[in-house]
Amino acid sequence: MLNNTVRLKQRPYGFTDKNTWNISEEDLPELKDNEFLVKVNYISLDPAMRGWLDDVKSYLPPVQIGEVMRAGNTGEVVKSNNPKFKVGAKVMGWFGVQSYAVSEGKQVLDISQFGLPEEKFLSVLGMTGYTAYFGLLDVGLPKSGETIVVSGAAGAVGSIVGQIAKLKGLTVIGIAGGKEKCDHVVNDLGFDTCIDYKGMDVMKKIYEHTPKGVDIYFDNVGGEILDAILTRINKRARVVICGAISQYNATSRPSGPKNYLSLLVNRARMEGFIVLDYADRYQAAAMEMAQWMAEGKIKSFEHMEEGLENFPEIFNRLFSGEKRGKLVLKV
Amino acid sequence: MLNNTVRLKQRPYGFTDKNTWNISEEDLPELKDNEFLVKVNYISLDPAMRGWLDDVKSYLPPVQIGEVMRAGNTGEVVKSNNPKFKVGAKVMGWFGVQSYAVSEGKQVLDISQFGLPEEKFLSVLGMTGYTAYFGLLDVGLPKSGETIVVSGAAGAVGSIVGQIAKLKGLTVIGIAGGKEKCDHVVNDLGFDTCIDYKGMDVMKKIYEHTPKGVDIYFDNVGGEILDAILTRINKRARVVICGAISQYNATSRPSGPKNYLSLLVNRARMEGFIVLDYADRYQAAAMEMAQWMAEGKIKSFEHMEEGLENFPEIFNRLFSGEKRGKLVLKV
Repeated sequence: MLNNTVRLKQRPYGFTDKNTWNISEEDLPELKDNEFLVKVNYISLDPAMRGWLDDVKSYLPPVQIGEVMRAGNTGEVVKSNNPKFKVGAKVMGWFGVQSYAVSEGKQVLDISQFGLPEEKFLSVLGMTGYTAYFGLLDVGLPKSGETIVVSGAAGAVGSIVGQIAKLKGLTVIGIAGGKEKCDHVVNDLGFDTCIDYKGMDVMKKIYEHTPKGVDIYFDNVGGEILDAILTRINKRARVVICGAISQYNATSRPSGPKNYLSLLVNRARMEGFIVLDYADRYQAAAMEMAQWMAEGKIKSFEHMEEGLENFPEIFNRLFSGEKRGKLVLKV
Repeated sequence: MLNNTVRLKQRPYGFTDKNTWNISEEDLPELKDNEFLVKVNYISLDPAMRGWLDDVKSYLPPVQIGEVMRAGNTGEVVKSNNPKFKVGAKVMGWFGVQSYAVSEGKQVLDISQFGLPEEKFLSVLGMTGYTAYFGLLDVGLPKSGETIVVSGAAGAVGSIVGQIAKLKGLTVIGIAGGKEKCDHVVNDLGFDTCIDYKGMDVMKKIYEHTPKGVDIYFDNVGGEILDAILTRINKRARVVICGAISQYNATSRPSGPKNYLSLLVNRARMEGFIVLDYADRYQAAAMEMAQWMAEGKIKSFEHMEEGLENFPEIFNRLFSGEKRGKLVLKV
C-alpha cells in the first residue's frame, strides 16, 4: 500500500508556491504494537498553518524541512494493533497532509458515535468551532445588548463567532470581502449587518454601522481594519486577537495598530489566545455546539475541494478570499 | 487681590510653546454662598495634560481656548463661605494653573490632618501614586516571582510602580534615559536593574536583562521600546498601557506596535486604564501607600520648580526628560 504525502521542501518567503512542497508516493511502514493505520479522508486547511512554516519560536514548533505538513484531519481506521481504535472507526486527529497515517492514538478522538458527517469535525465541531467558542466566550466576554464586530465574517471561525454572539443577544456586525459574501453573512448566518471591506469608504461604513460604538472586536484579519475599529471602541471594550490573515504572508514587517492608544483612553483590552490551551474543555464545547446545531441555531458551511495533489494551490485560497466557510480538502 | 492665571490661548501643533499660553493678572470674583478661596501653592505637572490640549474626544473634555489650564494642585484656604473648608485648611483638588482658585469643594480633599508635606499629595499620595497603584495592582496583576519591566522608571509614576512591584516580590527592571537616572533607579529606588535606552543596543540589553522573559510590562513611553518588549513577553503576560510619552507631541500619526501579534502567540493582553475610574478607592490606596512610606518601603522624589510665569517652559520638561521623579511647580 502506498502513501501519498505532502512534505515541506523549502520555507516560503511570502506566499507558498509549488517549490514549497514535495509531493511523493512512499511505502507505508509495518504497524508496531499499539499502532493503527488511518486512511485520511479530509484535511483541514487553516490560516494558522502558514505560521507553522516559518522558522520562529511560537506556540507550536515549526514544521521541519522534510516533514509531512501538519494538519488536522478526519479519517477511518483501516488496520489496527490498538484495541481502543478498531478497524472501521471514524477518527479525528493530527494526521497531516497525506493519504494514510500511522498513529498510537495520541490526540485522536473516535467520532463514530456521533453519526455526523466527518467534515463537521473539522469545522464547527472541531478546532475551528472551539476557536470561535473559547475566543468569543472566554476572551471576548460577551454581554447581552452589546455590539460586536467580527472580521473575516464569512470565514470558518468568524461565521461561527457571529452566530454564537447572536445567540447571546448581541448586535452582530460582520466585515467581509464582496457583496456575495456579505449577503451570505446576513441571509444565511443571521448577522445583523455586514460591511464589504472591498467597497469604498470602509471607515465611513464602519462609523455608520456602529452608532453605539463597539464593545467587542473579534479580529481575524489585522491590518487597517483593526486600526479603523480601534477608533470606534467603547469604554472597557475587548479586542480579541484571533488572527491577522492580512499579515501572514507579508515579507516586510507589517505595521502595527497605530490607534492602539485608544485602548488607554477607553480602558480597553487587546488580548490574544490559542485554542490549544482549552483542550480540557473541547468536549463540553463540542456538545454545546452540537446541541445548537441540532436546534438550528448555528449553521456551518464547508467549502470542499478535492485531491491531495491540489493542496499547494488550494492552500493559498485561505488568503485570497476565494472561499466561504471552512476550507476542507477531500483526499 | 489679583489672580495670576495661565489660560489656553491656542492649541499646540506638536510641542507647546509661548504662543500656546496666555499669562495674565485678573481680578478675583466675590465669593458666593458655599464657595471658598484657595491660595494655590503647588501645581502638578503631568504628561496627560498634553492630551487635554487637543480638540479630540477623550476620557475628559479638552481644555477650551480661553480656559484656565486644568491641573491638580494643593493649596490653602484663605477665605471661606463654606463650613466644611475653614480658613487655614490645606487642600488638594483641581484648581488649575493659577495662583488663586474659587471652589465649592467638589473633588477637594482636606489634607490638613495628615501633617505631611503638601507636595507628597501631588506625587505618591495623589493621582500619580494612584496611577501607579491601580495600574500595577489592578491591571498588571503582579504575582511574586514574576518579572516586570517599567519604562519611564525614573519618572513620577514609573518610580512608584517599580517600588510597589519590588514589595510584591517581583524582579523589577527599569528603563530610563541616561546613566545618572539609571543609577538613581537602582540605588535610590531599589530596582534590580535599569536599562539606559539612550545607550547603544537597547534591544540587546533588554534581551540580556530578561533571561526569564517579561510577565508584566508597565508602559509609560510607547514607541520602539514597547515594540522591543513585545518580543520578550511570556505566556499570559500583561502589557499595561499607562501612557506613551514618546508620542504625545507627535505631529504625524505615530506608528503602532508592529509586534502586537506576540499577544496572540503568547495569549497575552495589552490593556489601558484611566486612574479616574478608581476614585472610590483613592483613600484606601493613599492609606496603604502612606503606610509603606512610613515604613521606608517606598520613597518619593519630587523635582521642584518655581514660578507660575515659568509654566510654559517647565511644562515641556515633562517630555525632554530633564527631570527626576514627580515634576511640581511651586507658585
